[in-house]
Amino acid sequence: MTSDHIMNAYDQELKFLANRIAFMGGHAERMVDQAIQALVAANVDLARKVVADDMALDEAQRDVDDKAVIIIARRQPMADDLREIIGAIRISSDLERVGDLGKNIAKRVVSLSDAAQPIQLFRGLEALAQLALTQLKEVLDAYATRSVARIGQVRDRDDDIDAMYTSLFRELLTYMMEDPRNIASCTHLLFCAKNIERIGDHATNIAETVYHIVTGDLMPAERPKEDKSHKVVI
Amino acid sequence: MTSDHIMNAYDQELKFLANRIAFMGGHAERMVDQAIQALVAANVDLARKVVADDMALDEAQRDVDDKAVIIIARRQPMADDLREIIGAIRISSDLERVGDLGKNIAKRVVSLSDAAQPIQLFRGLEALAQLALTQLKEVLDAYATRSVARIGQVRDRDDDIDAMYTSLFRELLTYMMEDPRNIASCTHLLFCAKNIERIGDHATNIAETVYHIVTGDLMPAERPKEDKSHKVVI
Repeated sequence: MTSDHIMNAYDQELKFLANRIAFMGGHAERMVDQAIQALVAANVDLARKVVADDMALDEAQRDVDDKAVIIIARRQPMADDLREIIGAIRISSDLERVGDLGKNIAKRVVSLSDAAQPIQLFRGLEALAQLALTQLKEVLDAYATRSVARIGQVRDRDDDIDAMYTSLFRELLTYMMEDPRNIASCTHLLFCAKNIERIGDHATNIAETVYHIVTGDLMPAERPKEDKSHKVVI
Repeated sequence: MTSDHIMNAYDQELKFLANRIAFMGGHAERMVDQAIQALVAANVDLARKVVADDMALDEAQRDVDDKAVIIIARRQPMADDLREIIGAIRISSDLERVGDLGKNIAKRVVSLSDAAQPIQLFRGLEALAQLALTQLKEVLDAYATRSVARIGQVRDRDDDIDAMYTSLFRELLTYMMEDPRNIASCTHLLFCAKNIERIGDHATNIAETVYHIVTGDLMPAERPKEDKSHKVVI
């Protein structure tokens, strides 16, 4: 960089990316939270709002992508900054997907609103969503503070989400078997549960990206991908 | 670029990205195809092979990402090349997800292999997979030839996939309602169908990326995101 002036402009550009990511993170969290609220309360209006809210997330992702390309083209980013910029592209893509998953839950509220569901099924979904949202908050904090001190826990806690998802899945199956009239609605709830479990996966992706941005390394102690291959999938 | 020598090295680097994407595309297609074969034939060995095959896709994605970062850092890519490089990162991420979805189908074969399923359900899944794989082939051809002449059709045909998915979904629900003993296995098939429908979405994403690489513009006549918001989701 040739001058402080340019240095500052450059820093501002990087800051723009970080700010958009922060916006996307808060927005995606709120969408998921409100989608679950809408589901539990059979609140079709809130669900429609969540669906509409997804637009802002798509826009923000385009902003991040466009700005990232401009920054790379204009500056000659060093390794650190380049990781930061490519990392922003990745994180915004994960957050956009989290928003999509929240939107998908919201869309199901319309299909579900006329069938009364047993309250304990919602409790399970709420608890699962709470876990996933906590994960998301942690990784977004880690991104904002560039701190990887507690980031290893995120991946470990993803196992808790998987375990809770499995138990909820079995509960939903039982409920379907008890009464065939529950099948259509429980199928929606199965997909909602799956969506929340996927949100946890995206939080883990973000954790790995943040770790790479901050340290330049791959996150250690990654569970081998084959680990789960012999597990029965549900 | 200062010399033919460097020009060639640069071209080779871009070629490396394109080759890895071509490998990933072929590999992901084969994984999905074999996962469906394994499902229909209850072939657990083939399913395990598909699960193991996913490793190569993850590796190739890391290759693309690492190489893309190195190219950007070393060269000062112009707008065209930058779109090409960022596009490669995006496409490899979509293909890695396609592989994951194929792997997820393969994992379910183990859970499904001891329950006999009616053959017509498999036929529906096969037909759906065929449509999604055709889409994938088209967009990979478009990427390889940098031709966007027929790429608009890909997004239109994604509607066919959605319609076929919806019909298969209803069929599976009916089958679950007829006999509660079908519920657990049909739930797996529901998720398989959903995975295939998602593969179609990734093909559409890739179409949009290829369009952007080739033309520098966003793909026109995009269906407004809200279009589907009032549709009942299944």
